[in-house]
Amino acid sequence: MRLALAQANFTVGDLTGNSEKILRLARKADALGADLAVFPELAVAGYPPLDLVTTAGFPEACEAQVRRLAQRSAALRTAIVLGFCGVSAEPGKASNCVACVHSGQIVHRQAKALLPTYDVFDEARYFESGSTPAVWNFGGARIGLTICEDAWNDKQFWERTRYSRDPVEELASQGADLLLNISASPFHAGRRQFRLRMFRALAARHAIRAAFVNQVGGNDQLIFDGSSFAVDGTGRLGATAASFDEDLVCWDVTGGARMDSPWPGRADSDGELAAVYEALVLGTRDYVTKCGFRDVFVGMSGGIDSALTAVIASDALGPRHVTGVAMPGPYSSDGSLVDARHTAEALGIGFKTIEITPVYDRFLKQLAPSFAGMPPNTAEENLQARLRGSVLMALANKFGGLVLTTGNKSELAVGYCTIYGDMCGGLAVISDVPKTMAYKLAGVGNRRHPGAIPESVLTKPPSAELRPDQKDSDSLPRYEVLDPILQAYVEESLPVAEIAERVGQPAELVREIARMVDRNEYKRQQAAPGLRVTSKAFGMGRRYPIAQRYVR
Amino acid sequence: MRLALAQANFTVGDLTGNSEKILRLARKADALGADLAVFPELAVAGYPPLDLVTTAGFPEACEAQVRRLAQRSAALRTAIVLGFCGVSAEPGKASNCVACVHSGQIVHRQAKALLPTYDVFDEARYFESGSTPAVWNFGGARIGLTICEDAWNDKQFWERTRYSRDPVEELASQGADLLLNISASPFHAGRRQFRLRMFRALAARHAIRAAFVNQVGGNDQLIFDGSSFAVDGTGRLGATAASFDEDLVCWDVTGGARMDSPWPGRADSDGELAAVYEALVLGTRDYVTKCGFRDVFVGMSGGIDSALTAVIASDALGPRHVTGVAMPGPYSSDGSLVDARHTAEALGIGFKTIEITPVYDRFLKQLAPSFAGMPPNTAEENLQARLRGSVLMALANKFGGLVLTTGNKSELAVGYCTIYGDMCGGLAVISDVPKTMAYKLAGVGNRRHPGAIPESVLTKPPSAELRPDQKDSDSLPRYEVLDPILQAYVEESLPVAEIAERVGQPAELVREIARMVDRNEYKRQQAAPGLRVTSKAFGMGRRYPIAQRYVR
Repeated sequence: MRLALAQANFTVGDLTGNSEKILRLARKADALGADLAVFPELAVAGYPPLDLVTTAGFPEACEAQVRRLAQRSAALRTAIVLGFCGVSAEPGKASNCVACVHSGQIVHRQAKALLPTYDVFDEARYFESGSTPAVWNFGGARIGLTICEDAWNDKQFWERTRYSRDPVEELASQGADLLLNISASPFHAGRRQFRLRMFRALAARHAIRAAFVNQVGGNDQLIFDGSSFAVDGTGRLGATAASFDEDLVCWDVTGGARMDSPWPGRADSDGELAAVYEALVLGTRDYVTKCGFRDVFVGMSGGIDSALTAVIASDALGPRHVTGVAMPGPYSSDGSLVDARHTAEALGIGFKTIEITPVYDRFLKQLAPSFAGMPPNTAEENLQARLRGSVLMALANKFGGLVLTTGNKSELAVGYCTIYGDMCGGLAVISDVPKTMAYKLAGVGNRRHPGAIPESVLTKPPSAELRPDQKDSDSLPRYEVLDPILQAYVEESLPVAEIAERVGQPAELVREIARMVDRNEYKRQQAAPGLRVTSKAFGMGRRYPIAQRYVR
Repeated sequence: MRLALAQANFTVGDLTGNSEKILRLARKADALGADLAVFPELAVAGYPPLDLVTTAGFPEACEAQVRRLAQRSAALRTAIVLGFCGVSAEPGKASNCVACVHSGQIVHRQAKALLPTYDVFDEARYFESGSTPAVWNFGGARIGLTICEDAWNDKQFWERTRYSRDPVEELASQGADLLLNISASPFHAGRRQFRLRMFRALAARHAIRAAFVNQVGGNDQLIFDGSSFAVDGTGRLGATAASFDEDLVCWDVTGGARMDSPWPGRADSDGELAAVYEALVLGTRDYVTKCGFRDVFVGMSGGIDSALTAVIASDALGPRHVTGVAMPGPYSSDGSLVDARHTAEALGIGFKTIEITPVYDRFLKQLAPSFAGMPPNTAEENLQARLRGSVLMALANKFGGLVLTTGNKSELAVGYCTIYGDMCGGLAVISDVPKTMAYKLAGVGNRRHPGAIPESVLTKPPSAELRPDQKDSDSLPRYEVLDPILQAYVEESLPVAEIAERVGQPAELVREIARMVDRNEYKRQQAAPGLRVTSKAFGMGRRYPIAQRYVR
């Protein structure tokens, strides 16, 4: 039996376009002699469809597309396995379904049993839970179908399991000899290796061949890396699909196993850094184009974050669709402008310089009667950032395009950023990238575009340049100290005492950082959507109240 | 038996403060001779605690507070019934619990069985589901305890039920003769009457006395109205607590019923309008003060929305904590400034005038080389709004305070607002108020502050005054046409064809409005948190993707 792993990039809610793509790839699989073309979870709807699922008529429209696909693929020898949002009998709910389509008919159908409802997932909000799945007999194989989370509850693999049921075990006990898992499993650093390890363990435990077929592409905050694969009954790799790109890979189920691993199997931090870079490129490209734009504007301060954002944007959209904008103010250094221009020229992107100082001076004059007798504070600093935001938005409004924000995760965590200022923009490209990781990603960018981010940018002390001689380190610990604290607090949600011990810093410092994180939740709730590349990003997967007083 | 319905205002995460308040009210109930003091759902944690629930140590800290409360209340004759976030054995989950505390012991404990996971509720994300509740024998009564949603699944009351189980039925079949429901049930227009109707039906069906005890107060987007009550076994009212304020009301369970209904039982739209007004006052006060602020700034354009926001803010915080700021620009009419000043003077709030025209002119000069040859468009209009936003934020940053945004729901729905401009602010006071309702609420405000919103504001055609002779009706249908379409689309999620038929407008117009709503999701995801007063507000209860192409 030959399987085609059909790893496609879908757009949320584009039911017709997604279905056309499925049909096109099914025909290609047919031409390649595949018995079965396997598509990801919620292929027809795209993932995550969020409240579209419970919008009147949405599941019905998805069901209609599946029936239409069945008719239009009736002449193919290849059967189609695909995920879609189905109608449910439960009030207010839909069904996260897999359908097997052959000879014009839906020959098998099944609902997802385990509904992830944590982090970025809200499936209990949308879907009914499926009952025990039945094996699907097709082409001499006894196929066990699972949808994403259904395969993530093995009692031997996990230290603690979330659910009492294990659909894989249920299927194995029915004599399934081929396990298919259709997924919409988002990327974060290290995720590809983890999935492979888990499926290898599953395959070996049940002595069953298994294929994992994942979505690829960016949808708002989530980036799907694809990275589909198949393993034989001992857990050896039989087929692998690309990461961060569409792919259609054939796997002869009973054929010999291949031993090549496409992703570093050992802990290769540079390999995973490159993956994060690729993820950000894909996430940026898809957000911009799926929103209907082609051009972006990036404020370039001469610092590492905006340089990195410009490099990623240029790779995502092509340099002629990116305009860097330098906006010198009263405290900008000459070096910053030189560095910003250098990166823009090295990339071949557009570059503009628009000074904000004359506007800033005029603005202060308007405020002078109100501010009389008050010492300068963040009001003046934030004003500079807000005027820059207004310049970028004016360009975007005039020429048509999106503004990309350039803030990193460390700044966003502690609120070292100006709401309605440098936080202006449609997409926060590196808002899940800690500052220390931004330096490493700059290295990845520089290997692709040698010298694009000059040495001076990599070595000068970070500064917002909003008052004379300002340095980030005036207000914050060094990023080498800050980032491990933030990772423990934000990503792992550890208590203060435990963090202090782990990082070897005073509990008082850790508590102060924790307070800054909590106090700045209001800024993050008005932040642009950011691309998720770690296990816990600010945004849809992390939901804290603003007006709250819990002290950890 | 005497019950005290202890309707208190808690702050999310303030475990110590909330517990102190519970103890204080329990002592008061004891002094009033109550056998039982009944507190709302998640009283110790506040509602909604969101991801605090799954933060390391949070349920343990709540449990510790309950044990401490038991010790400290050991000498009271009054037993305490209260909701708290308990520890669960399920990985990654907590337990939404009720505890009965008496003589220093936790004498009964039970977990919520039905976990709402729709609209603003995400309880399946946080909590394990409780098993069949057991009757609690206390003081000669057989008490059936339920937590909020547990009582919202009666098969005879609802046309369609969400859950297969009905905890009220389970308790009634065990011979319960007193039903207690502890709740965190948020307000929206009409909700109070609905709850009373539902509990009356429950009481009559099971011939059981029942008390409903609700949280009161604002927590971020949600406003809890309190409005606790008790009914006898025929559904007649026995006790009622205040709406929108703390209260401690005693109910003699076997005493005679009172027939007075505190909320209009008939469809009294003005009564419910006054409730919406009260809700906005409470929500504004609590958001500002629970965030640690006292003062607010409101941009006053001379239009209805900003006048209404100023009136609400003045009632919420006191006039000396509110500063109205008029920011005339090149297209502002003289009348607008006069009207803004009139409202400020009538309310006795602070008032400032800061012209933006000189800054705007200087800004355009900076942009002129980039904009050469391009006709004016939204870039120039939005720039005016963004400069105004920057003025307000500068004042808030300089003097310490929150900016309140003044946009209404109709504008936010169709994107008739400027992101980083008039959308700047910490709280969106009337962002769930449709424009047509804003006029009616202005009437409520004017009855409290006669003449505060002058006739000219109520009668002039709405205009953003961002270009010469601009009117809202240049870009949008009249609000009398727009609002019913938006209600059907946003609140009821109806298909386009059905809306067109209901409102008697062409389907093409409805579809264009629907497209505007969908296209502007990106603005709403960066909007300030808004106070929810309808059954479906933008914000936490409505989650749509930005980059999507579904056409309803």
